[in-house]
Amino acid sequence: MTKLTTESYKGVRDFYPEDQAVQNYIFKVLREVSESFGYVEYGASILEPAELYRAKSGDEIVNEQTYTFTDRGEREVTLRPEMTPTVARMVAAKKRELSFPLRWYSIPNLFRYERPQKGRLREHWQLNVDLFGLEGIEADADVISVAYNILRKFGLKENQFEIKINSRKLLDEEAKELGLDESKKKELRLLIDKKNKMEVDEFNQKLKEIAGETFSLKTEASGEVLEVIEMLKKSGITNVIFDSSIVRGFDYYTGIVFEVFDTNPENRRAILGGGRYDDLLTIFGGEKVPAVGFGFGDVMIREVLESYDLLPTYTSTTDLCIIPFNKNCFEHTSSLAMTLRKAGLAVVVDYSGKKVADGFKKADKDKIPFALVVGEEEISSGEYKIKELKTTTETKLKAEEIASFVKHLTI
Amino acid sequence: MTKLTTESYKGVRDFYPEDQAVQNYIFKVLREVSESFGYVEYGASILEPAELYRAKSGDEIVNEQTYTFTDRGEREVTLRPEMTPTVARMVAAKKRELSFPLRWYSIPNLFRYERPQKGRLREHWQLNVDLFGLEGIEADADVISVAYNILRKFGLKENQFEIKINSRKLLDEEAKELGLDESKKKELRLLIDKKNKMEVDEFNQKLKEIAGETFSLKTEASGEVLEVIEMLKKSGITNVIFDSSIVRGFDYYTGIVFEVFDTNPENRRAILGGGRYDDLLTIFGGEKVPAVGFGFGDVMIREVLESYDLLPTYTSTTDLCIIPFNKNCFEHTSSLAMTLRKAGLAVVVDYSGKKVADGFKKADKDKIPFALVVGEEEISSGEYKIKELKTTTETKLKAEEIASFVKHLTI
Repeated sequence: MTKLTTESYKGVRDFYPEDQAVQNYIFKVLREVSESFGYVEYGASILEPAELYRAKSGDEIVNEQTYTFTDRGEREVTLRPEMTPTVARMVAAKKRELSFPLRWYSIPNLFRYERPQKGRLREHWQLNVDLFGLEGIEADADVISVAYNILRKFGLKENQFEIKINSRKLLDEEAKELGLDESKKKELRLLIDKKNKMEVDEFNQKLKEIAGETFSLKTEASGEVLEVIEMLKKSGITNVIFDSSIVRGFDYYTGIVFEVFDTNPENRRAILGGGRYDDLLTIFGGEKVPAVGFGFGDVMIREVLESYDLLPTYTSTTDLCIIPFNKNCFEHTSSLAMTLRKAGLAVVVDYSGKKVADGFKKADKDKIPFALVVGEEEISSGEYKIKELKTTTETKLKAEEIASFVKHLTI
Repeated sequence: MTKLTTESYKGVRDFYPEDQAVQNYIFKVLREVSESFGYVEYGASILEPAELYRAKSGDEIVNEQTYTFTDRGEREVTLRPEMTPTVARMVAAKKRELSFPLRWYSIPNLFRYERPQKGRLREHWQLNVDLFGLEGIEADADVISVAYNILRKFGLKENQFEIKINSRKLLDEEAKELGLDESKKKELRLLIDKKNKMEVDEFNQKLKEIAGETFSLKTEASGEVLEVIEMLKKSGITNVIFDSSIVRGFDYYTGIVFEVFDTNPENRRAILGGGRYDDLLTIFGGEKVPAVGFGFGDVMIREVLESYDLLPTYTSTTDLCIIPFNKNCFEHTSSLAMTLRKAGLAVVVDYSGKKVADGFKKADKDKIPFALVVGEEEISSGEYKIKELKTTTETKLKAEEIASFVKHLTI
């Protein structure tokens, strides 16, 4: 028989328990903060009709950067590269039944077919926070507040990140004044989006080619950008600035756009980004629905938290390991374990038949905080020596005392 | 512009917040019970090299029932149809570093390319619970106990389901006695697996064709099957029986196999199933690793819980809606909301600018339990009338009293 490789598919990750624990921690913070602002969770399949991405993203992304294939029913299917078209589709589908405004979030996995590189894998997870049905800047401020509070909840200080805001409307006005057509305007936007990845001279040269000699990027906020910044400052969020180079890649944005940056100059890519996309739902027919949201990817979250040493250290979800002294003690052990589980503990039984000392070692290696042995003495006395593995301290307890003792020490 | 459909891809589901809440409830129970037995969570990508499924499942499933496509790097990729090959790959990859026995669980989404029908969608989620590194029947009993306790935790009574156990070893022995070769043995197993879907006469006829006149299915448990049943009964699990027609479809099982059935005769399909697969890791080269596990799909869980009326009613994850009386109250409202969030509440602010009565109606429709209005009176007095929307009872509270009041009433 040919030997199979144990490697995962190229550009995706296996999550061993210690990696999964980090992922679970990240998702927990994302959920808690999103829900604390009244956002409720939704979900969808990773499979979507390919047409969904052709409509607004431009063909390039469907043809070159997505996993798109034809199924046996001759349907073109895409593994979703982003969540916004999906959530727009879902909202459009039930527009009459849903009670607006909607505050929705999800943490989907997304797929991009590109060369794997640092921070850009073929599969990643991304928090998506969206607010539908509010035109005012309160909506923009609401979603930006969620993003801000997530970063704070992860432990970042206000001076470790910066929120940069702009509006597509400013660019639209300028393009109109300059008499640029849609295609020139898009060219201008794509150039500005790449500004930080280019040399200054090259950027200025190209800017002139597209927009003429007189065009220059604004340095002063005005209109709704100013209003959003003011509203955020009033609510205590002060690390917000106007930045006319924030324009975002996707076509569908229509108003406020924003990105958050690490203030550490070594990380120059945006940590997260989003904006307003009031017109997107019209691709399904029917009227406009005001919408604003952002996406925040797990790979970037990990990198930022790692760089600021903010990732939690791993401990097992198991509270206690019970080691039966020999096979005769299995029945008592299994019954004690069930009693403790009913009292709310996560309890593993060591059925390996190895020496007690090995059982303690293995529990400690697995980062389980407590262990105890069940032998004839314990069975007859009804008292158990519970060992805290980090300190090796032992405490003698009756069965009914164990759960509260362990919970008290693990919280 | 052509109008896009709002339908999802065929055979997959959209999870609107009320559906997602059911999913989250189900996953919570699966996680809690699995962890209570010391199983720790792992994860992986849905993308796997297609070879992984060719090795042990037989070609049929890869070619006819999976989503398999060729990527631009000429790699054959499959959307995983089951999790066992993935977890086997991950364990094999780090066999030397991992500390056995391993108790691992995951709730992956899986894909099958088949005609969508009741209970069999193209995408579903499935709890996978696996124990690696233990040869003894304690391991089989451990995973079966997890399955049993999940069903009990969901609220099923012991007489509402039945655990049916068999062993592949019994069939192997009989096949040996009858002198059946590997292909005939597989034919026999596949026939027995379909027993409940066939007429009795047709089944008996085919049985004779494959195994001869003398062969009959056993009615008495023996060997390890008996031992597992005894061990489970000692731990208080009494709805377990031997059933020689339980053989499971996949090739890779080597010992104990089991399925759980709803005792309601209207649901004749297995609710969940699993077994021992000690040889599977050898497909990656290297030695055998004893392994036993089971899978439990979300679609079946929903159906069973629905049929026994055990699904929870939806309430929002949002605790409180704050309605500012007018725009002048936005700043105070947003600050009150932040204070309450810091105290642990999930608080949404109604920025719609609609009438207060509409705000209350919308909060109630969204299944948010509490709401309050912030007007000039509240701002000057520092007291808020908090309304429980179900009962319409109002209680006057200071800001610092609100969080504990709401938490007390929502737990």
